[in-house]
Amino acid sequence: MTKIRVGIVGGTGYTGAELLRLLAGHRRASVSTVTSRGEAGRPVAEMFPSLRGSIDLIYTAPDTKTLAECDLVFFATPNGTAMEQVPQLLDAGVRVIDLSADFRLRDAKTWAQWYGMEHSCPGLLEQAVYGLPEVNRDRIRSARLVANPGCYPTAVQLGFLPLLEAGLVDSDRLIADAKSGVSGAGRKAALNTLFCEAGDNFKAYGVPGHRHLPEIAQELEAAAGKPVGLTFVPHLTPMIRGIHATLYAELVVSDVDLQDVFEKRFGHECFVDVMPPGSHPDTASVRGNNMLRIACHRPAGGNTVVVLVVEDNLVKGASGQAIQNMNIMLGLDEDEGLGAAALSP
Amino acid sequence: MTKIRVGIVGGTGYTGAELLRLLAGHRRASVSTVTSRGEAGRPVAEMFPSLRGSIDLIYTAPDTKTLAECDLVFFATPNGTAMEQVPQLLDAGVRVIDLSADFRLRDAKTWAQWYGMEHSCPGLLEQAVYGLPEVNRDRIRSARLVANPGCYPTAVQLGFLPLLEAGLVDSDRLIADAKSGVSGAGRKAALNTLFCEAGDNFKAYGVPGHRHLPEIAQELEAAAGKPVGLTFVPHLTPMIRGIHATLYAELVVSDVDLQDVFEKRFGHECFVDVMPPGSHPDTASVRGNNMLRIACHRPAGGNTVVVLVVEDNLVKGASGQAIQNMNIMLGLDEDEGLGAAALSP
Amino acid sequence: MTKIRVGIVGGTGYTGAELLRLLAGHRRASVSTVTSRGEAGRPVAEMFPSLRGSIDLIYTAPDTKTLAECDLVFFATPNGTAMEQVPQLLDAGVRVIDLSADFRLRDAKTWAQWYGMEHSCPGLLEQAVYGLPEVNRDRIRSARLVANPGCYPTAVQLGFLPLLEAGLVDSDRLIADAKSGVSGAGRKAALNTLFCEAGDNFKAYGVPGHRHLPEIAQELEAAAGKPVGLTFVPHLTPMIRGIHATLYAELVVSDVDLQDVFEKRFGHECFVDVMPPGSHPDTASVRGNNMLRIACHRPAGGNTVVVLVVEDNLVKGASGQAIQNMNIMLGLDEDEGLGAAALSP
Amino acid sequence: MTKIRVGIVGGTGYTGAELLRLLAGHRRASVSTVTSRGEAGRPVAEMFPSLRGSIDLIYTAPDTKTLAECDLVFFATPNGTAMEQVPQLLDAGVRVIDLSADFRLRDAKTWAQWYGMEHSCPGLLEQAVYGLPEVNRDRIRSARLVANPGCYPTAVQLGFLPLLEAGLVDSDRLIADAKSGVSGAGRKAALNTLFCEAGDNFKAYGVPGHRHLPEIAQELEAAAGKPVGLTFVPHLTPMIRGIHATLYAELVVSDVDLQDVFEKRFGHECFVDVMPPGSHPDTASVRGNNMLRIACHRPAGGNTVVVLVVEDNLVKGASGQAIQNMNIMLGLDEDEGLGAAALSP
Repeated sequence: MTKIRVGIVGGTGYTGAELLRLLAGHRRASVSTVTSRGEAGRPVAEMFPSLRGSIDLIYTAPDTKTLAECDLVFFATPNGTAMEQVPQLLDAGVRVIDLSADFRLRDAKTWAQWYGMEHSCPGLLEQAVYGLPEVNRDRIRSARLVANPGCYPTAVQLGFLPLLEAGLVDSDRLIADAKSGVSGAGRKAALNTLFCEAGDNFKAYGVPGHRHLPEIAQELEAAAGKPVGLTFVPHLTPMIRGIHATLYAELVVSDVDLQDVFEKRFGHECFVDVMPPGSHPDTASVRGNNMLRIACHRPAGGNTVVVLVVEDNLVKGASGQAIQNMNIMLGLDEDEGLGAAALSP
Repeated sequence: MTKIRVGIVGGTGYTGAELLRLLAGHRRASVSTVTSRGEAGRPVAEMFPSLRGSIDLIYTAPDTKTLAECDLVFFATPNGTAMEQVPQLLDAGVRVIDLSADFRLRDAKTWAQWYGMEHSCPGLLEQAVYGLPEVNRDRIRSARLVANPGCYPTAVQLGFLPLLEAGLVDSDRLIADAKSGVSGAGRKAALNTLFCEAGDNFKAYGVPGHRHLPEIAQELEAAAGKPVGLTFVPHLTPMIRGIHATLYAELVVSDVDLQDVFEKRFGHECFVDVMPPGSHPDTASVRGNNMLRIACHRPAGGNTVVVLVVEDNLVKGASGQAIQNMNIMLGLDEDEGLGAAALSP
Repeated sequence: MTKIRVGIVGGTGYTGAELLRLLAGHRRASVSTVTSRGEAGRPVAEMFPSLRGSIDLIYTAPDTKTLAECDLVFFATPNGTAMEQVPQLLDAGVRVIDLSADFRLRDAKTWAQWYGMEHSCPGLLEQAVYGLPEVNRDRIRSARLVANPGCYPTAVQLGFLPLLEAGLVDSDRLIADAKSGVSGAGRKAALNTLFCEAGDNFKAYGVPGHRHLPEIAQELEAAAGKPVGLTFVPHLTPMIRGIHATLYAELVVSDVDLQDVFEKRFGHECFVDVMPPGSHPDTASVRGNNMLRIACHRPAGGNTVVVLVVEDNLVKGASGQAIQNMNIMLGLDEDEGLGAAALSP
Repeated sequence: MTKIRVGIVGGTGYTGAELLRLLAGHRRASVSTVTSRGEAGRPVAEMFPSLRGSIDLIYTAPDTKTLAECDLVFFATPNGTAMEQVPQLLDAGVRVIDLSADFRLRDAKTWAQWYGMEHSCPGLLEQAVYGLPEVNRDRIRSARLVANPGCYPTAVQLGFLPLLEAGLVDSDRLIADAKSGVSGAGRKAALNTLFCEAGDNFKAYGVPGHRHLPEIAQELEAAAGKPVGLTFVPHLTPMIRGIHATLYAELVVSDVDLQDVFEKRFGHECFVDVMPPGSHPDTASVRGNNMLRIACHRPAGGNTVVVLVVEDNLVKGASGQAIQNMNIMLGLDEDEGLGAAALSP
């Protein structure tokens, strides 16, 4: 059985390394090239000793010709890089999954405003499929270009979707209080993510406005079929992996079985686990794993719904979801390469 | 200068040890007795080597006669213990600060409902002064019995108070999303607070109802002058000390300078620090310290107010605030023994 | 293909849960029964939500008859439990791998001295095979009862073995300074392994004598062919998984290529990775993984050899090695079910 | 009472910030100037919010004239900076304590070899006093220039000194296995000290040779009165503050009461705490505190001595010891400003 040839552009960050880790166990796909401008010529396993024995590749400088020989290419690059290279690859017939934010917003002006640069190929924005399988599975199947969702957006959307799609809550007053492990900040030298700064510490950030806000709002509005009012507050929590989103909404219908709503919406999903009533999912239960776990509460039987959502930001929030998208695009089992149980403790 | 004689009932938990740590540096008060049923006869510094050289006491079994010789007694005991012993001490003329929850609720029935036992001296509930100096300073000064506030309630109240007192927000729709370090669970052998369970992990708990909810509601209602609707969701975060409360409320008045409201309300407080506009306080900035830091946001200039509050749950959230109360009761400088800068990193 | 039927006695601790995690991905073996006296009747995945979707079993009370239907049974029980039940299972023709210390020492008197109770089946001590595949692979293949090595002993032995077997170092003066993550203490409510006690903290323990000392000494003496003098100091380090052993020995032969010695000794091993010269392996590089990584140094070209060894204490130091032993006993590929890359970061 | 005027050159790193934290509580000294080239004009408390309310200073560009008005100046700068500026300050009659390594080695050639640059004022090396009060208290008293010891050297020396001074151990075979919290690496953007790299991880580093080796060797040789053979292996452990040194030596005299030796040597020291026999000091017991705690073991009554030493690397290992030196130089109580109990948990 010939393996699918996969390329990774930008293999030195956490999402690139996570793609490599997960693909090392994938039976149908094989990484044929992984690029890094800065580390070209260096063995991957020298930079990531955890991959010694699993990945034998050497970083190469990005080269369109080599990448064009791949069946599918992942971009695990900083924002603004993929949009420069994707058009050529699409022209060469290569399918692309972009883990950065370059193709997540449909409006080029909004994108420019939040990402601080002009978009270099706005024409592709409409064509890109937003890669949330639980919403867009059919479109992903045939997509040439998939915009892999952000880590926060994945958790926040999947928690709110059943409520908004069914028109159960006041869409003007949504609150998403999200907490992320430090790996969400990426693998780059910086003061605020040093062990001594982020360790034994907790803080909010980006309260005036975070780049994931327009992405979440765009997709929630699509689900609700109208504008939504969302307050989104991200926090940095002293753990390596994991996002916990605590979502608040006001019911507009009081006679509703919320547990049933969530179970019906996600009952057939292989990577969304609706926990039993009364549950408090913890991030450790999805460490290293592509599952997103949800619990739904209605404290004191009142009108406020509290939805608890956990995911591994590097897996369901990034590289795992990217592989899930790849599996869908290529007609493979959706959970191929993603079946290992979470690592806990 | 004769030192004030202080007793501590229950000196083996985190709040008891924290009282000892802080009182070791207090120039006007001195711990004359510290009790523990289980550890009677054992040197305090053997159990807490961090106090070697600072505290020379030996645990004794609790004894009313010895405690009655103190000027003031702190209870750092599990809920339900103080109410059994406080009446005798008050009768003996000793002033009492209770760090447990025994005297925080004014209604005995509500207390019984949340704490699972009958209150043994309901008559004292009305007499006890709720020890939040920023609200009750005058009453604390002359109190015989002070109910020291809970850790979450301190943070949540001080964040909401300026808004409620001024009638600026819809008091029916308050949300407090709070995150606590693990020391909030106390120093007792338990599975869920093991390093391997609570470490590198994040979860909500008590979403259907947490004991601090009625305490917070009682005091917020006093501030608002009417019933409030509060959703309170506590979370466990993998750090030792610290609480971060993220508070959400809807403005009912749009033309208001929130920064000014907070600065005016707390400008003369020695232990509330209103940060500059745009700030994101972190818990490390109050580690070991009695300060509570607040920042106020209004994302995108909308109607939702987001208040960020940090405190050290063992200091301003417990033992530091207890000493602040003691200083007020005894006419000392309010910050005596509480002046050391936070330990960061 | 019929799967091998595996039983686990004691499925609520960390090593039991780790067996379940790893076996969930094993293609040739399947857990048919997992026991717990205290949790009988409870779904495994309720206790370990990380196994939701991977393990559908319910804990049962231990029952010899049911266990006797298994092809192989793992004991992941506290010391002293396996020795009571193993004889019956062996009589029933079941093969057994004991992850506790019950069968690790060959001398019943020494065992009684270190474990504080009489051994109930000393006759089996001689028959039990010490399950270190890199030393005893052939004997493991045909063993009925395998004593799975301790976590520290695995790391310390594999680091010293090449030196002792070749007679390169003074066996009278061996020093093993070992550091363990907190999961090594097991999943039980205890004060000293609370997050607030073990977190942001570091200490040695058991310096006067630790139970793993006689186990290590017994095996090192077998390798050296003579008595050895070993100083073993374990430490608790604030991480969840991982052991780092730093080993010191004095060369008695100065003209030797140590890198070559280690590579020759372990070149054919699938779970021992001799790192390139100058390496400093970190525990994260084996998180969740059965690999043990070794680096060998000779600072300033002197006579002191420093060997650095890392392993995941729950995998190569416990459950992973147990499955490796099972694979050998059953004639399967030695790495079946153990191939997933380490989880890093 | 006029306060002593203190200057700090390099106030943006961890040791600079720690000087500020500790001096904020010093009754006899006051920081009059704190410099930073990069942050000149910025309030100190903006960079370190933990100092809000404690330190009102603004960073200034380093200026010899201003510094010359101080009674004493601390250098908390990267290696190679102090040696450029110290001569001028000494000429101006200012006393200097250098927390960097510039004046720790007496031999300029050795210094150049380990620090990779020529020493710019080798003539001062002989004049500088090595600031370990437990050894050089008298010389420190009158010193114009004090070389504050490194963090590892402080712990390793104080653990070995009683043994070497009394000639009790084989000085050719000393082993120091040291573990440091991450703050030892300083406050600078770097990959290997990111939370996600250093967290939940453990590794050795610098095994072939670490800069603290010649410093330790120089001082141990002075104590022993002859050359010593030392193997020094530092490790990075996932905690913020703290060093744990585990020291190994071979007794050459067997009939000796080691506990007595240590107690006699350090009985009068205010910042060395010899723990009771059988103790295992932990780093949390000195968090934020200038105490160094020591315990001495002789496992199984053999010839190997194991000394356990803990200190806070930023306090006794850096800024606290610097203030202790300042107190000695200025004739103040040696523990002035250093009396606060350790912060634990």
